[in-house]
Amino acid sequence: MRMIKWQNGTVITPDQTKLPLQEVTIEIQTVEQMAEAIKTLRIRGAPLLGAAAGFGIAIAAYNSKAKTPTQLIDELEAAGILIKHQRPTAVNLFWGVDRVLNKAKSINGTIEELKAAVILEAQLIADEDTAQNHAIGKNGSVLIADGDTILTHCNAGELATVEYGTALGVIRAAWAEGKKIKVIADETRPLLQGARLTAYELKRDGIPITLITDNMAAHVMSKGLVNKVIVGADRIVQDAIFNKIGTYGVAVLAHEHNIPFYVAAPKSTFDLTCRAVDVTIEERDPSEVTHIGCQQTAPNDIDIYNPAFDATPLKYVSAIICETQIYYPKDYPTFRKTKL
Amino acid sequence: MRMIKWQNGTVITPDQTKLPLQEVTIEIQTVEQMAEAIKTLRIRGAPLLGAAAGFGIAIAAYNSKAKTPTQLIDELEAAGILIKHQRPTAVNLFWGVDRVLNKAKSINGTIEELKAAVILEAQLIADEDTAQNHAIGKNGSVLIADGDTILTHCNAGELATVEYGTALGVIRAAWAEGKKIKVIADETRPLLQGARLTAYELKRDGIPITLITDNMAAHVMSKGLVNKVIVGADRIVQDAIFNKIGTYGVAVLAHEHNIPFYVAAPKSTFDLTCRAVDVTIEERDPSEVTHIGCQQTAPNDIDIYNPAFDATPLKYVSAIICETQIYYPKDYPTFRKTKL
Repeated sequence: MRMIKWQNGTVITPDQTKLPLQEVTIEIQTVEQMAEAIKTLRIRGAPLLGAAAGFGIAIAAYNSKAKTPTQLIDELEAAGILIKHQRPTAVNLFWGVDRVLNKAKSINGTIEELKAAVILEAQLIADEDTAQNHAIGKNGSVLIADGDTILTHCNAGELATVEYGTALGVIRAAWAEGKKIKVIADETRPLLQGARLTAYELKRDGIPITLITDNMAAHVMSKGLVNKVIVGADRIVQDAIFNKIGTYGVAVLAHEHNIPFYVAAPKSTFDLTCRAVDVTIEERDPSEVTHIGCQQTAPNDIDIYNPAFDATPLKYVSAIICETQIYYPKDYPTFRKTKL
Repeated sequence: MRMIKWQNGTVITPDQTKLPLQEVTIEIQTVEQMAEAIKTLRIRGAPLLGAAAGFGIAIAAYNSKAKTPTQLIDELEAAGILIKHQRPTAVNLFWGVDRVLNKAKSINGTIEELKAAVILEAQLIADEDTAQNHAIGKNGSVLIADGDTILTHCNAGELATVEYGTALGVIRAAWAEGKKIKVIADETRPLLQGARLTAYELKRDGIPITLITDNMAAHVMSKGLVNKVIVGADRIVQDAIFNKIGTYGVAVLAHEHNIPFYVAAPKSTFDLTCRAVDVTIEERDPSEVTHIGCQQTAPNDIDIYNPAFDATPLKYVSAIICETQIYYPKDYPTFRKTKL
């Protein structure tokens, strides 16, 4: 099921902040609306952010009243800056903006030709993401055995992508092949993407799912209740995987319990220009920690630290499943601009 | 400040489920009310449960209309069974019940003498707990250095004890000695004792506290933001520490980051009759995971696993701070009924 659609200048996508209790669709018609949707996580998930970024530029092009191609490019660049500014860690956002912008800049034509090319390129990102996720699923399913119980963190599912999912794409592919697998989902505080989104998706698809709080992962591992871990990624740099806060802890625990730890992500997630220390980790509003929906859970005026991502050094990663192949980090001391 | 008081047959204690937003006191006058308060965590925390258990038997004695000492003992035993039944993992509950029951059985006297002895013994448990926690604090503060940032999980504070706290007792003692320390508190899902109780207590006392979600612990450790961990315990067996779910994960992460992991607990927490595999881990209601107060956070009809405790093998424990001394588990391959 397509999570993001382009329809005559309008981007249609589920409001993920409302799930699982309400299935609400939003219609985005301005770059500002797209920026807001990205900032507030109505749209989230690395690959979906790549597509949303592309469509954000497409909206700017569609609505533009520019008189010259140069003026149009200036407008698209301004839109790109606004979109990139919303989430500093997710590389797919930068990648999606840049890909569409570069396409626009490569066109030597009329304004209408530029606009058409921009919209087409954004749609192409979405179509490619769908194909890539199916390829990731197929590649990754060889690592999944009949009877496995797989722990996942956050949501790297259909809702994080244009379709099918990355980590959950691997699970879907294994399930489709008839492997009797079970999934344990960390709820993933503070924003509960595991409880709200992963549990929702897998339950909808009939894949057995048990929900736990994040701090139960170590216990279920020690009890032998998990034999694989699979997560997505927001950015893969030379020496680490950036993903939702809590991923690093799960990776260390998996390592300690000799449980394979897999990352499933398209190659657009790689950013081999930098190392973990170079990456700015987004810190989000304290209210995400002190409140859950309407419920205040902590005293007033308390200091909060709310990083949205963490870095998992490659030594804890057993394999990175991409659309073209599986990379085993043990073969790469660091991904030093390796040709991948 | 005394967390539990006996006043002419009534036990007065804060309703911890209402904190930090409401400071509500409850008055318990029957064994059934005490059982309910223990089951629903209005009263929680291992040492406080020991005192509450003793006071539960005292309430049974106070209200008894028994005609003979034997009949009274039978009633107290029935009360003890009801109280012990509420939480299967916390050894202090069994310990508190048994201590007061054994006192009653040791008295060769009138019904009134038995009742008086039972009530006195329950009060003695509470008084001793206060003294023990101050001693734990004093013993443990030698392990805390000026400038330390200490991570704690759940609430092993004043609210978990009759007064002063165990893990937070150590922090209070170090603070009182003028050591400039900071605390990072895990929120401790599902029931958020860290966010609701630890943050509340430390903020009230002016000790610097930063709240994080459980899954941020690994990240703060990797960033060098923590240099000690200290937690309480619900039961210490020959080969492991049982404490609030999530403790084991924190211990593994501390071990991986070479951060000392300390446990502060009175000797009544030791149960050297058994090993970790022998202990039943309480599983609590799924709604604790799917709901936070009024807020539903997961789809309906989802499978939930909700263990309340986990076991941390002694190899991850740097020191156990008791009221008499500090035990270093490295000196004890297991606590095989060692005389402690």
